[in-house]
Amino acid sequence: MDEFALIRRYFDHEPARPPLLLGVGDDAALLQTDGDRLIATCCDTLVAGRHFAADAAPEHIGWKALAVNLSDLAAMGALPLSFLLALTLPEADETWLDGFARGMFDLARQHHVQLAGGDTTRGPLTITVTAFGEVAPTHVMRRDGARSGDLICVTGSLGDAAAALDGADAPALQARLHTPVPRVAAGRVLSRYAGAAIDISDGLLGDLGHIARASGVGIDIRADLLPASAALSALGSPRQLQWQATGGDDYELAVAMAPEDVNDAVAACKALSLPLTVIGCCTGAEGVRLLSASGVPCDLPDSGYRHF
Amino acid sequence: MDEFALIRRYFDHEPARPPLLLGVGDDAALLQTDGDRLIATCCDTLVAGRHFAADAAPEHIGWKALAVNLSDLAAMGALPLSFLLALTLPEADETWLDGFARGMFDLARQHHVQLAGGDTTRGPLTITVTAFGEVAPTHVMRRDGARSGDLICVTGSLGDAAAALDGADAPALQARLHTPVPRVAAGRVLSRYAGAAIDISDGLLGDLGHIARASGVGIDIRADLLPASAALSALGSPRQLQWQATGGDDYELAVAMAPEDVNDAVAACKALSLPLTVIGCCTGAEGVRLLSASGVPCDLPDSGYRHF
Repeated sequence: MDEFALIRRYFDHEPARPPLLLGVGDDAALLQTDGDRLIATCCDTLVAGRHFAADAAPEHIGWKALAVNLSDLAAMGALPLSFLLALTLPEADETWLDGFARGMFDLARQHHVQLAGGDTTRGPLTITVTAFGEVAPTHVMRRDGARSGDLICVTGSLGDAAAALDGADAPALQARLHTPVPRVAAGRVLSRYAGAAIDISDGLLGDLGHIARASGVGIDIRADLLPASAALSALGSPRQLQWQATGGDDYELAVAMAPEDVNDAVAACKALSLPLTVIGCCTGAEGVRLLSASGVPCDLPDSGYRHF
Repeated sequence: MDEFALIRRYFDHEPARPPLLLGVGDDAALLQTDGDRLIATCCDTLVAGRHFAADAAPEHIGWKALAVNLSDLAAMGALPLSFLLALTLPEADETWLDGFARGMFDLARQHHVQLAGGDTTRGPLTITVTAFGEVAPTHVMRRDGARSGDLICVTGSLGDAAAALDGADAPALQARLHTPVPRVAAGRVLSRYAGAAIDISDGLLGDLGHIARASGVGIDIRADLLPASAALSALGSPRQLQWQATGGDDYELAVAMAPEDVNDAVAACKALSLPLTVIGCCTGAEGVRLLSASGVPCDLPDSGYRHF
C-alpha cells in the first residue's frame, strides 16, 4: 500500500461539501468564507532522517519546512498570508532553534507571511507547517483542471535537487536541494492562464500522474524539452534525464493551459525572470509517457517518490 | 527553558498585522478574510510515548488528535468547520489505520467537520491536526480579555483525566482521558458572555496563568469550589485537589466574565446539560492563587505540564 492508496482508503471518504470547496487530494484545500476570496490551506511534514539528514543545517530545515508549503499554495495560485508551526524536538537546543528560526523567518519575510501560532512538543524531530493563502475562485488551479489538447509547461529547471541528493556538490545544485524557492509569484501569474497545476515535489512524471488521473487525460512529455540549469548541464551526467524526470524536491510548477495562452504565460513569467518551458501536452489517452524527440517512449527505472 | 519561554524567544517576534488579527500565544490564531467572519485556526501535535502510550488504542488516538484541536477552537468561541491531518507513521499498519480513522471520523461526524487534506509521511508516530473554524469578531474569546472583577467559571468537572492517568481505572475516568469531549457548543454559548477563555489541557492553574498574564490580572481560585465528577468523588482520594487543580487533559473550558452575566451563562450551559461553576475571580494583583474556603493559600507541588 503506497502513500496515495493509503490516503484513498482511509482518509478520502466523501466529497467535500460547503464550506469546504476542495478537500483531500489536491495541493491545498479550499475553504469558503462569507467573503469572495477562498482560503487555501495545506500542510507538509518534514521528518528527520527521511526528508533531511538529522545533522542538516537548521537554517535549511527551517527554510524548507516553510518553502514546501508555500510551494503548495503557489500550485493553487494562492497568495500566502500566514502559517502555523508544529515543532516536535528531542531537546530545546538553543543553537539549533536559533538557526531553524532564522531560516524560517528569512523565507517568511521574503513573502510577507506571518507565523500565526502552532505547537511545540518534545519527541523525535518532526516539523509540520500549515500554510494559509487566499485566492479568487476564478483563479484557482486544481489538479482536475487539465483538458485534452492543453500544453504542459514547467517553470525554471528540473533535476538540480535530485542531482544534489545524488552527491553532486556544485553550490547551485546544493542550494536547490536545501533552500528551494517556492514559485509563489509565478503561481499567481500562471493562475490567469492555467487550468491545472501541481508543484514538483515527488518527481515530474509522478506528480503529472496526479493531474492526469484527476483530470481524466493522458500526458505526453518530451524528454528533449525538459529544461536543465547550467549547473546541471555542466555535470554532463548520464543520469541527467533520470533526475529531471523523476527526481523530487525541485518545487517548480507544472501547469496545463490551452495552447493559445502559452505565449502570454511565457512572457508573464519572463517578467519575473523565470523561464516557462513547454514540455508536453495532454492527450485523450491515459497515464503519463516520457517520449524522445522522435516519439519513442523512454525507459526510466522509477517515476516518483512514495512514502510507503 | 520551558515550552513557553522557547516560543517567546524564537517564535514570537512581532505583533500580528492584518490579515492576521491574533497570532502566537492564544488557543488559536485569527485570520481576517474579505468577509465578516474570522477564520480561527490552531494545531496540536500528539507524539507517541509522550501524549499517548505507543500501544494505545488507535481509536482513542484518532479521536483525541482531533478533540484537542476542536477544544482549542471551542476556547475561541469558534464553530469548527474542517481540519487537516499530518500523519507520520512508522509503517502502514492496516488494523491501526482502520481504528485511527474510525476514532477520528466518529468525532468529526459529531461536529459536522470535514477532513480537508493533509500529509502522510513515514517516521516516528506523530500526529498533527490543524483545525479551522469561524467566529464573529464580536464573539471572540481571547486570553487577554479578562478584567479585574470578572468571575472565573469552568465547564463540567475537573481532575478525571489526571486521576485516570494516575491509574484510576473507573471507566468514566478512563473515558475522560482517552476520548475527551471538546466543549464546542458550550464555547459558542459562552462566547456571548465571556471576554476570555482557555481550554484546560495542561492543568487549571497553569492554563489560568496564561489568561492572568495576557490580561494583566491576578486570579484567585477557591479550592472548595472546584467541581468533581461522581466518579472522581467516589475515589475519595487525598490527591483529588491535586488532580483538579493541576492535572491536564480535561479539556474543559475556563472563562472569565462579568458577575452580572454569570446567571445567564449558567442557564445557557444547563440547556446543554453541562454544569458551569463559578470557581474564583480576577483581581488587581498578579499571578494565580489557589485558596481554601477561608482564604488560605493551598500548597500544591506543581502547577501545569511543560514540554521542556
